[in-house]
Amino acid sequence: MQRGERELIRRIAAALRADPARVDAAPGVPFGDDLASIGRGGLLWSTDMLMDGVDFDSSRHDWRAIGRKALAVSLSDCAACAARPVSALVAVALCDALHMEDATALLDGVIECGRTYGCTIAGGDTNSWPHPTVISVAVAAEPIAGAAVLRCGARPGDALYVSGALGGSILGRHMTFEPRIALAGRLVRSAAPRAMIDISDGLAPDLHRICEASCCGAVLRAELLDAAVHDDARRLALQTHRPPREHALHDGEDFELLVALDPAEASAAAALGLLPLGEFVADAGVRLMERDGAMMPIEDGGWEHFR
Amino acid sequence: MQRGERELIRRIAAALRADPARVDAAPGVPFGDDLASIGRGGLLWSTDMLMDGVDFDSSRHDWRAIGRKALAVSLSDCAACAARPVSALVAVALCDALHMEDATALLDGVIECGRTYGCTIAGGDTNSWPHPTVISVAVAAEPIAGAAVLRCGARPGDALYVSGALGGSILGRHMTFEPRIALAGRLVRSAAPRAMIDISDGLAPDLHRICEASCCGAVLRAELLDAAVHDDARRLALQTHRPPREHALHDGEDFELLVALDPAEASAAAALGLLPLGEFVADAGVRLMERDGAMMPIEDGGWEHFR
Repeated sequence: MQRGERELIRRIAAALRADPARVDAAPGVPFGDDLASIGRGGLLWSTDMLMDGVDFDSSRHDWRAIGRKALAVSLSDCAACAARPVSALVAVALCDALHMEDATALLDGVIECGRTYGCTIAGGDTNSWPHPTVISVAVAAEPIAGAAVLRCGARPGDALYVSGALGGSILGRHMTFEPRIALAGRLVRSAAPRAMIDISDGLAPDLHRICEASCCGAVLRAELLDAAVHDDARRLALQTHRPPREHALHDGEDFELLVALDPAEASAAAALGLLPLGEFVADAGVRLMERDGAMMPIEDGGWEHFR
Repeated sequence: MQRGERELIRRIAAALRADPARVDAAPGVPFGDDLASIGRGGLLWSTDMLMDGVDFDSSRHDWRAIGRKALAVSLSDCAACAARPVSALVAVALCDALHMEDATALLDGVIECGRTYGCTIAGGDTNSWPHPTVISVAVAAEPIAGAAVLRCGARPGDALYVSGALGGSILGRHMTFEPRIALAGRLVRSAAPRAMIDISDGLAPDLHRICEASCCGAVLRAELLDAAVHDDARRLALQTHRPPREHALHDGEDFELLVALDPAEASAAAALGLLPLGEFVADAGVRLMERDGAMMPIEDGGWEHFR
């Protein structure tokens, strides 16, 4: 297994694009966006699978927090498309060694998270096996403002914003983040976001995703990026001896929204507390402009499963 | 972990029934049926998780067949509710040792199965980890005839039918079964099924499920049951030295439909090739009536995860 998850996803995308049924069923949402079209009633949906030892660590995290995260990552996908979650399904393969109390705490975490964000838990599938626990969530959602916001709408000249500071989420925020559904609602009502994505793989790879989908590039401004570095990135940098900026660029699981806006929307962006990062440009790729004007390419290189 | 999956499901059901949002969102479909309500547009959905070493064996089954089964079990849930699948999401945790060719074969199996049954693959989530492969599918569906057929509609006096012979599916049919979607469509057009379930856990446990949901019981007639024993059950009985009838009653993964019909629909049932098994009765529980009229209780005891 050498060519990695992206190669596999490329093959999947090619196979699905070749499926005539899919093109008919989901004309508006390209494969690989945060949500897909169900194909009826304008509904969208998404699925995420979390594995013990990869996405959470049951020796450190309590099961209620694990259940919360399992739903919250899918709710973050809803936020990325400016969609309101409607209901969710939860499938689990529980480790045989798990206690009933842990299993119910896991479920309670899912239900409580759903209640917080208006998402009903409609059902699921319960299994057990002699390996670490796996949780898979599917969430159905409806666009808050008529149509979903996709990754593919950014244009050269658009301003690039992020909904919060970045980096070092592994210190704890990756378990406790707030899906930005309410912010996404305010955004689509007060501005007209051209493209959005939630930062799950990392700023650099997810910005590459928006640029590829939108057939453009982006320039991050060093002084803006440095202002958007989370304190956790600075704390983590003390351990890793890497620059905090590297953590802001490449750490995964920030679950903040990356937003392309018409530059004329600057005051709306400020009113919503968005942090400016730079702008979209015609040339492909992502670059960092240092304070002295020097340009440095930013590689895709985020977290890749199945490398 | 002693009290088993059913105790956990009971707790889940209690927690979800206590959730006021759920009651509003899904008034028509009780928790635990084969499909749940999405809460918008009359759509239904379901999720199933399959684990290597439990639901399939990657050392014996090829990945295309595994992918096919992963979707087919969810399509069988659609058939059980007389619903037409619309689209599906597929999430995977692939074993690190898997080859790219195996991963694409798995996907091809899912896509081909979807094409056969009119179900678009809308998207998914790709992960890998150092444990056996897990596949989770969510499928969205719409009722073929206005409303879903549920488990809870059987009444004392209804006739009990099954869509095919039972038992011994482990000899191979559990990987190759046909989801009974077309039959379910003919059924709702030519008869009016009062209740349905697909046999995934086994005839005995799944008949118990219908009876519990419908607040009634059922009597299986020995001569009818014996006529519905699959040749695979007889072959397997030569190895297990258990009666073939036991395999028909308790083996899982037949994925045939168990149907409650008004006795007046007998000719429609015969025209559809349904096999009669007995009838629903007022007294709770499931019993077998021997040819001499002796009654024997049939225990629930099917496959139980998380025992």
